[in-house]
Amino acid sequence: MNTAANAMSAEQRLAESGIVLPPPPSPFGSYVEAVRTGNLVYFSGMVPVWGHEPRVRGRIGADLTTEQGKEAAEQAMLSGLSAAREFLGSIDQVTRVIKVAVYMLTTPDFIEHPKVADGATDLMERLFGKEKLPVRLVSGLGSAPLGMPVIVEFVLEVA
Amino acid sequence: MNTAANAMSAEQRLAESGIVLPPPPSPFGSYVEAVRTGNLVYFSGMVPVWGHEPRVRGRIGADLTTEQGKEAAEQAMLSGLSAAREFLGSIDQVTRVIKVAVYMLTTPDFIEHPKVADGATDLMERLFGKEKLPVRLVSGLGSAPLGMPVIVEFVLEVA
Amino acid sequence: MNTAANAMSAEQRLAESGIVLPPPPSPFGSYVEAVRTGNLVYFSGMVPVWGHEPRVRGRIGADLTTEQGKEAAEQAMLSGLSAAREFLGSIDQVTRVIKVAVYMLTTPDFIEHPKVADGATDLMERLFGKEKLPVRLVSGLGSAPLGMPVIVEFVLEVA
Repeated sequence: MNTAANAMSAEQRLAESGIVLPPPPSPFGSYVEAVRTGNLVYFSGMVPVWGHEPRVRGRIGADLTTEQGKEAAEQAMLSGLSAAREFLGSIDQVTRVIKVAVYMLTTPDFIEHPKVADGATDLMERLFGKEKLPVRLVSGLGSAPLGMPVIVEFVLEVA
Repeated sequence: MNTAANAMSAEQRLAESGIVLPPPPSPFGSYVEAVRTGNLVYFSGMVPVWGHEPRVRGRIGADLTTEQGKEAAEQAMLSGLSAAREFLGSIDQVTRVIKVAVYMLTTPDFIEHPKVADGATDLMERLFGKEKLPVRLVSGLGSAPLGMPVIVEFVLEVA
Repeated sequence: MNTAANAMSAEQRLAESGIVLPPPPSPFGSYVEAVRTGNLVYFSGMVPVWGHEPRVRGRIGADLTTEQGKEAAEQAMLSGLSAAREFLGSIDQVTRVIKVAVYMLTTPDFIEHPKVADGATDLMERLFGKEKLPVRLVSGLGSAPLGMPVIVEFVLEVA
């Protein structure tokens, strides 16, 4: 069973999961969503949007629970996957997830950043497998674009 | 006309723009301003200074308007270009702007981060052209060195 | 004397310093502590812990002095060195420290970020020498995991 799971590609796992990717994100200013240099693809900070419309707003610890923050991190990561698929043609091009940084808007005394960030990296583990897990940075923001609770920045390695 | 513009190098565009670069920044501690590894050049976080003197201080949304924040982002990026020219000899060595991260000191409910960040990346677009635009991260700080409103971090690709 | 010092390896300097590295850090969620791609090794955000236990908590400028913040930055960097040694076998594999980012939890009007960050990069200079100093980013957080005062993120180049 594990063997079968491991034999599946990331695109197959995504299809099986029933997850619907949001439309590929488009810039809010003078930048692009993805840049390749050598075998690395850098991505812009991803937010939980559908088009340019926030799917969620607010501060974790006040307006949103930790669990809702985690969902927002997953939504931002899904925008990132949509950007990755558009840029690469298929997320099966990914040989390793290198880095995921999860910036979150919280109350000043919030301390459960790792639980929120798991929303982004659990998704990557599910699609790419434990052996491709990235390094991770978590941090708490002072303010955030459009008042959205998370920003997810990431770097992928491709063949 | 566009053709002529595209044929100009980044140094030529900078000269034509009339922009005066600040002196190359020097460290505030135990670090350097630029490090090359392979074809990438990483730069330290750049702030709007002239020498070690802040050109602007304050929190965007309270002490400074969004437009003033945008100008501060441009000033920080200019310090970055000055560092890049010193390190590379000429900014014409740049084959691609890979990443620009704009960290900004704002009021807690500020939401116009993309407009502030455009101050840095509009400048890069003007000098290097649309086809070399980077990925971008924006985020709101809780506090900032010397009370300056922006920090700009960036990575360049060189030949 | 300088010649002798320069001839020593980073592992030798660490041994001579009498510094005791904390145990290698282990993840607080779905990520790993280090990922290699090409000649670069990315590390997760490091915090001042011993195991999963914070060695220090609080906000610099209120609960902690700048000097205590600097010590916390050194402790987080030591966790990073412990991770590096575990991943690489020896810190003598490091050919260059590429980047160190020091995120710190402070009062809103704190401005001495460079002094705090020197806690991390002074240590790197002592072990690897001035010629391997990295670029550096400093920034002030709105909140931090487990209420710890610093997070140190870094990238190393290896042979």
